[in-house]
Amino acid sequence: MHRALPGFREFYPADCALRNHIFATFRRVVRRFGFEEFDGPTLEPLELFTEKSGQEIASQLFHFEDRGGRAVALRPEMTPTLARMVGARAAGLKRPMRWSNVGEAFRYERPQKGRLRSFYQMNADLLGVEGAAADGELLLLLLSVLSEFGLTAEDFHVRIGDRCLWNLFLSQFSLDGVEPVLAAIDRMEREEGTRERLLALAPADGAAIWDGISVLRTCHGLDGLRQFFGQFAPLRERAEQRLADWEGLLECVAGAGFSPNVSVDLTVVRGLAYYTGFVFEAFERGGEGRALAGGGRYDDLVSKLAGTPLPAVGFAIGDVTLANLLVEKQLVPVYHPRPAVFVLWEGDRHREGLALVTELRRHGLAVLWDLSPVSRSLSKQMQRADRSGAIFSLFAAADGNGPVTLRHMESGEEEKMDRAAAISRLVECHRRPGFTGPDLRQDP
Amino acid sequence: MHRALPGFREFYPADCALRNHIFATFRRVVRRFGFEEFDGPTLEPLELFTEKSGQEIASQLFHFEDRGGRAVALRPEMTPTLARMVGARAAGLKRPMRWSNVGEAFRYERPQKGRLRSFYQMNADLLGVEGAAADGELLLLLLSVLSEFGLTAEDFHVRIGDRCLWNLFLSQFSLDGVEPVLAAIDRMEREEGTRERLLALAPADGAAIWDGISVLRTCHGLDGLRQFFGQFAPLRERAEQRLADWEGLLECVAGAGFSPNVSVDLTVVRGLAYYTGFVFEAFERGGEGRALAGGGRYDDLVSKLAGTPLPAVGFAIGDVTLANLLVEKQLVPVYHPRPAVFVLWEGDRHREGLALVTELRRHGLAVLWDLSPVSRSLSKQMQRADRSGAIFSLFAAADGNGPVTLRHMESGEEEKMDRAAAISRLVECHRRPGFTGPDLRQDP
Repeated sequence: MHRALPGFREFYPADCALRNHIFATFRRVVRRFGFEEFDGPTLEPLELFTEKSGQEIASQLFHFEDRGGRAVALRPEMTPTLARMVGARAAGLKRPMRWSNVGEAFRYERPQKGRLRSFYQMNADLLGVEGAAADGELLLLLLSVLSEFGLTAEDFHVRIGDRCLWNLFLSQFSLDGVEPVLAAIDRMEREEGTRERLLALAPADGAAIWDGISVLRTCHGLDGLRQFFGQFAPLRERAEQRLADWEGLLECVAGAGFSPNVSVDLTVVRGLAYYTGFVFEAFERGGEGRALAGGGRYDDLVSKLAGTPLPAVGFAIGDVTLANLLVEKQLVPVYHPRPAVFVLWEGDRHREGLALVTELRRHGLAVLWDLSPVSRSLSKQMQRADRSGAIFSLFAAADGNGPVTLRHMESGEEEKMDRAAAISRLVECHRRPGFTGPDLRQDP
Repeated sequence: MHRALPGFREFYPADCALRNHIFATFRRVVRRFGFEEFDGPTLEPLELFTEKSGQEIASQLFHFEDRGGRAVALRPEMTPTLARMVGARAAGLKRPMRWSNVGEAFRYERPQKGRLRSFYQMNADLLGVEGAAADGELLLLLLSVLSEFGLTAEDFHVRIGDRCLWNLFLSQFSLDGVEPVLAAIDRMEREEGTRERLLALAPADGAAIWDGISVLRTCHGLDGLRQFFGQFAPLRERAEQRLADWEGLLECVAGAGFSPNVSVDLTVVRGLAYYTGFVFEAFERGGEGRALAGGGRYDDLVSKLAGTPLPAVGFAIGDVTLANLLVEKQLVPVYHPRPAVFVLWEGDRHREGLALVTELRRHGLAVLWDLSPVSRSLSKQMQRADRSGAIFSLFAAADGNGPVTLRHMESGEEEKMDRAAAISRLVECHRRPGFTGPDLRQDP
């Protein structure tokens, strides 16, 4: 007896409908923000991911050598592929580029609730423009997508951090690069021992860095940040400039009515090494507080991967935690697909019957007929029509052009009528909203 | 400089729009046939594919050992996953099951025109019902999907073969299984040496088999088949039964008006070992005559993979050849996405401006605004509005609640009006069909 691999999902129709509802909702919202969809290979050269994304991802790759001896990996994220693609055609693309993607990604991790080895990511990236307005626009997109599912500020919040402010603070100390310190801050909410880690990284300054972190992680507003950086005269001016960016960002959020959904939170630094500015993560509120989405500005990645400098900001929403949350909050549309019509005919007059079936389908209706190889008596066909859940049945009598009988299955009401009239009636019903009841398959 | 792997595609927005148009068209048509979408893992245990699909596929797999020591493979096709899933829940699923899928598949082959290492397959399978009516229904679905793209009988045809008739013919000879003979027939259109291959397989009967094949491959109608099998008295009765199935199948096709699109052609046997009855392939007409789709009945696979007997018939359409044909025939919708409105405001009044942007987006319109960090003068904003391709611009003067100026970009006509009136006007325009011109992104 075969089984799926651990951490991989089988999507039975109701599961697939939920997945497709998530995809469709994302696509509907990104269109309103002027985004265009792109996609890239699921399998990529290994070095595309090991080179710039940092160790966190490299250790979790599904990678192998293909038959041609190439080191290849299933993509763990979309951003390096995006950076390569945009970089390769940067000169010919209209800026800013607003690109979105819905695609599968793979990480070899221990499967657990909300974390699988295969998952879908919905990515949105805004490239070719610097500054807080672009960061704000992207943040609004994330907030709008989550809201479109029916989630409110009581269900989720977005925490915004800032690598620029960390870099500014850390510029006072002599360090072998800030990356290991940022990695330590990233881990501090999940693991003990940050202070010891910092002392190991910077024996002379570790204690001062720890003290600064301890204050900064509790600053949940711009006033607190202003006060903190005010202590350090050499940093004051650059801090003020950056806080003006923060004001611009938060004004975007306020203008769109999303202030209750966001908070300033410098403990958010994001694990991927390529981020350079604002970073943000969306979390469930209450309960397990799982991460729903994350992103930020990465102004150097395109340059590093494709040789073309191109500022960029982007985010990814995962489908696993989001789907769990939608189920918990009862925000999943009912899945109850029903055919519109079941067509019946006497004897083996497939030709006439199928002409009718085909005409109705050409009008967009979901139409079934009895496929049984045996016992196609009218009563048997009617039983099957009943079991199919069809809203109407349509009985075509023996004469191909004669009248037909249209029956509303639930009420049992039926009417003998002209074939063309029956088709018109059904097509007209079909155009009415809610014709088949709440049905994901009717959702565009 | 990084590149994608050979045989893998990058989908820039216009390419992705064509891909999504293909997916959307398929999904639209399968819904009319009452199909439900499912999906399964992209990565599967290797043995799922090596066990039952035959050597043709097994030699073309991307397979490797994962970090847990499991032999795994990227799926080369969807059918084994489907068989496992349906088999595992067969008792609880309403029959017949009509299941469709749109998914990526992978084969390590030499990349060439129409053949890549990664491609998309659109699958449709009808399970739980035997007989020619189900085969006919599925064939109609394939014909309807291809027609929905605008392709006609001049562009493609479907050739229908029959493993039952081959099995019947070969039952006269003493053979070590019919599979190697069917494989030889499958290869005969692409390769020389079939007669020699048959003589090697069956030294005593090879010549007689070759003679039979030579006649059967030229039978393009039921009369010819009836005449051929009439020669062999012991086969006559079973041949007549099978030809009655053929009549049922062709009557379905005729009823739906697709007779010009199909032909009887026993040279079609399909490479996969699991087929058991009718098999069919859709080809381009003329030109290179590449295969667009293929499928058939596979009544034993679910039983073999999941232990539950379940008759089934299905097909897969590949996206690569289909996309090439649509381009050749100029059946690709124009991709020219345009935002509906570009919103401008004076100074740094982001809060008021973004409230307007957000409201318009909530009504479903694609709305842009100027993200530039510098030089947000009105004239600069207007330039950017112009370059964006937006249909309208909307200028919100300094006072957040004051009148706004709505401008139709192409004609230059503009009108100062109440904010609420401008929003209503835009929403109303947006609801009109063709508001943004031919735009794939508006296609449901």
